[in-house]
Amino acid sequence: MMQVPLLVGPMLEHAEKFFSKKEVISQTHDKLHHLTYADIGKRTRRLMSTLENLGVQKGDRVGTLAWNHHRHLEIYFAAPGMGAVLHTINIRLSPEHIIYIINHAEDKVLFIDEDVLPLVEAVKDKLKTVEAFIVMTDKAELPESALAPLYSYEELLHTGNPNFEFDKTIDENDPAGMCYTSATTGKPKGVVYSHRGIVLHSYALGLADSAAISESDVSMAVVPQFHVNAWGTPFACTWFGTTQVMPGPRFTPKRLAAFIEKFRVTITAGVPTIWLGLLRELDQGGYDTSSLRAVLCGGSAAPKGLIQAFEEKYNIPFIHAYGATETTPLVTLSRLKSYQQDLTVEAKLDQRSKQGMLVPGVKMKVIGSDGEVAWNGDEMGELLLRGPWIASEYYHDDRSEQAFHDGWFHTGDVVTVDEEGTIKIVDRTKDLIKSGGEWISSVDIENAIMAHDGVFEASVVAIPDPEWQERPIACVVLHEGFAEKTSKADLLEFLRPQFAKWWLPDDILFFDEIPKTSVGKFLKRELREQVKAHYNMQ
Amino acid sequence: MMQVPLLVGPMLEHAEKFFSKKEVISQTHDKLHHLTYADIGKRTRRLMSTLENLGVQKGDRVGTLAWNHHRHLEIYFAAPGMGAVLHTINIRLSPEHIIYIINHAEDKVLFIDEDVLPLVEAVKDKLKTVEAFIVMTDKAELPESALAPLYSYEELLHTGNPNFEFDKTIDENDPAGMCYTSATTGKPKGVVYSHRGIVLHSYALGLADSAAISESDVSMAVVPQFHVNAWGTPFACTWFGTTQVMPGPRFTPKRLAAFIEKFRVTITAGVPTIWLGLLRELDQGGYDTSSLRAVLCGGSAAPKGLIQAFEEKYNIPFIHAYGATETTPLVTLSRLKSYQQDLTVEAKLDQRSKQGMLVPGVKMKVIGSDGEVAWNGDEMGELLLRGPWIASEYYHDDRSEQAFHDGWFHTGDVVTVDEEGTIKIVDRTKDLIKSGGEWISSVDIENAIMAHDGVFEASVVAIPDPEWQERPIACVVLHEGFAEKTSKADLLEFLRPQFAKWWLPDDILFFDEIPKTSVGKFLKRELREQVKAHYNMQ
Repeated sequence: MMQVPLLVGPMLEHAEKFFSKKEVISQTHDKLHHLTYADIGKRTRRLMSTLENLGVQKGDRVGTLAWNHHRHLEIYFAAPGMGAVLHTINIRLSPEHIIYIINHAEDKVLFIDEDVLPLVEAVKDKLKTVEAFIVMTDKAELPESALAPLYSYEELLHTGNPNFEFDKTIDENDPAGMCYTSATTGKPKGVVYSHRGIVLHSYALGLADSAAISESDVSMAVVPQFHVNAWGTPFACTWFGTTQVMPGPRFTPKRLAAFIEKFRVTITAGVPTIWLGLLRELDQGGYDTSSLRAVLCGGSAAPKGLIQAFEEKYNIPFIHAYGATETTPLVTLSRLKSYQQDLTVEAKLDQRSKQGMLVPGVKMKVIGSDGEVAWNGDEMGELLLRGPWIASEYYHDDRSEQAFHDGWFHTGDVVTVDEEGTIKIVDRTKDLIKSGGEWISSVDIENAIMAHDGVFEASVVAIPDPEWQERPIACVVLHEGFAEKTSKADLLEFLRPQFAKWWLPDDILFFDEIPKTSVGKFLKRELREQVKAHYNMQ
Repeated sequence: MMQVPLLVGPMLEHAEKFFSKKEVISQTHDKLHHLTYADIGKRTRRLMSTLENLGVQKGDRVGTLAWNHHRHLEIYFAAPGMGAVLHTINIRLSPEHIIYIINHAEDKVLFIDEDVLPLVEAVKDKLKTVEAFIVMTDKAELPESALAPLYSYEELLHTGNPNFEFDKTIDENDPAGMCYTSATTGKPKGVVYSHRGIVLHSYALGLADSAAISESDVSMAVVPQFHVNAWGTPFACTWFGTTQVMPGPRFTPKRLAAFIEKFRVTITAGVPTIWLGLLRELDQGGYDTSSLRAVLCGGSAAPKGLIQAFEEKYNIPFIHAYGATETTPLVTLSRLKSYQQDLTVEAKLDQRSKQGMLVPGVKMKVIGSDGEVAWNGDEMGELLLRGPWIASEYYHDDRSEQAFHDGWFHTGDVVTVDEEGTIKIVDRTKDLIKSGGEWISSVDIENAIMAHDGVFEASVVAIPDPEWQERPIACVVLHEGFAEKTSKADLLEFLRPQFAKWWLPDDILFFDEIPKTSVGKFLKRELREQVKAHYNMQ
């Protein structure tokens, strides 16, 4: 067979040729843009030549601090298309972490959305490697700024060569992109994506039994383009000629609902928080969402009630998925097998609320206290992954060895596997509660408590116990107006029929708020300290 | 990203784990077998250990002369799974070519279907490298034979180790399979398939906009497993957990129709001749074919009437595809783009009767007399292909340079490309007629003549012409009873409104039969000689 490398650039080239009329619909801060893939192709070529003029060379990192819009999409293809590395930066991180990331990646240029500019201005004196700042606007809109040299995206593009060629000499294992994952402790950790990994991952997204991304779809990625490449959807959608709708900066549930209706969106992807917000907006009524064939949900586990609400109330198929920054990210997707269609409605919902089954191309191992666990839906173990789109290390980081060894990525996620091979995340290894030599899933108890009418949110952590080693404590925030009528005893009564006795929390503490990370996950490390302080433990 | 090679063995491993209950339904000469992928997995592992015991080593060729059934499927995974090379041999070739192929590939062992045994016995003294003959039966059924050493497949399997491991040290560019293409002149030419090529090709088959092969499908490949790996479907279907129905030796249209009804087949693949036969059987009436979501058709161009009959009469979606032995084979597939759904019924049929659009991962160039042709549906040029599942040479063959140069496979197929990027095969380069410096498509004229009620088949060839260089002559076989009422003048009158004047054949000759190759294609080389003889040309 021919030695033809799997490269990112030719994916856009395919769209330029075969889907030249198909559109990207992009909301920027000022207006709605309609561009064809022919337009995007020409603009991306101009951008590659612009990057070259700015001195960007093969292997250099091109940083972005931007929302989901067509200019960001163009950088997605221009940077790797010329052999440089697309480095998307999470604009929600602390200034300290943003400085660390830009310096650690050694970004040569930064592309910045107008509303993110103040964030960069505030840290500019700490940035050691950045040689150019490009604001993603027209020249006329270029704001005053202390950043220098400062360019307008559109003006730069104007000077670029629309016939610039994608670099075909790139090795498929060369870096195409990178993204930092915010650790709950310590500095963020960088993950580098290869061209090969992105192309193979795009194939996986197009499979009929996966996301089945198609030319006939209208895709709206709500997951930010700075978050694991919007789960790889911009690459796959472009390659397959899918119409893309990009909701732009600081979108609201109202805008999402309106875009779904207006552009007849068929598939959308995002985290549970987004879907909770959208659900509230839909409940206001009046939206036509009949075009939607799939709501992909990942990032953290979706409560069963959320899945149910989308499907039963709005007839919108909800697909639970699992992945991580280290995994490009698609690893599993929850779809019923053909013979599971005969299950009861309740059993189907149970099955689909799990994280699902491996997509073809990735391998897994689940390691419990006695080696590989049985596939019985009961034994817990850490999920280990291997595959051509799974990272092999953190970028220039001493912590790599902790997560990557023996040829496997140790996810830190604790799962069970049922006899169908479906995984269910039950905890993070570090949040799992070890009681009397057995494991208790904090996540299972949290989900059970959150199903109580009075509970807004709940987080369960371990405290040290002289007899049992560790014991669970539930931390609960009640809905407004429920403080009077919901007691610790009520909640324990509610939980009792659902768990073995020794799984029940030793105590339930009521909080006004539970500490969270910048991406909205429970900050259990801090919560654990608060709980220990409450009991006057060291 | 991790360096994980793309290998064939792990595709079956995936099915063993995640689709252990799903079935392969296989017809052999004596009975119908139902095996799960767990069964197929164990038997394949036994087979790998058996091959090892027979002395088969990494890189050795394992020949098969067999129909479509589960044992053949097991060799599909066992040979590449242990690092050897699956070599499927076309049982319809002449003994002379079969001897050439086995000796040229240096097959170490041969797996043979019982009914093909006489064919091998007749040539056994000419085979230089074969060390073992395995007949694909139970021991009790092992026939008397002059072949030695002779084994029964099931008996050998019985001695194998069901826990034998797939070799994970194989390089993804190593050979996994090979297949010889029968040239119209000269010896057959060998094509070697790499592990990487087969895995990537399988992804392409699973894409929503391609064949969309899914776990929920019931696939029946009618295209023989000795013909470009049954178009790769056994690999893809196994990986994706698809139920596979294998129609076994010497199947009839009646069996195909019965299997479609009985096993609720959803997708099937084969050449036009098969579908013409099935259509006749369906016309006898009484079959329930409502489960079919796709009939894939390739190998040669499907007449528009065939597509129409399946869709309008039986409501069975018909998908035209294009590929070659050198291309693993999937290259294009004819599906409408979303915005083409608004075309008229007739325009849609026209579009879908073309060969279609490139699947993601393959690149093309179409070279006419003045370089790349315009995409206007009119200019003709030779189709050139490039991609990771396109061959780079013929196996140990001096003729490689003719077809493979400048990094492209020169298909020898002449096509037009419309503005949507859809290709339409208009001829073979060597059959194209050059008249007055312009090209005439013999295939276009043939199709037009074959649409005449009186015509059974037609082939158009060039004869030398002193003024115009070449001129077309049509050779026509009439349906029974039409000789009296269909004249040369009638046919020319029928063609006149459809073509420019200079495209019309100079003459129409009536034949009882048109010479054909072993796979049923017109043997134009021979026909041309007959026509020239008719005119007393040299």
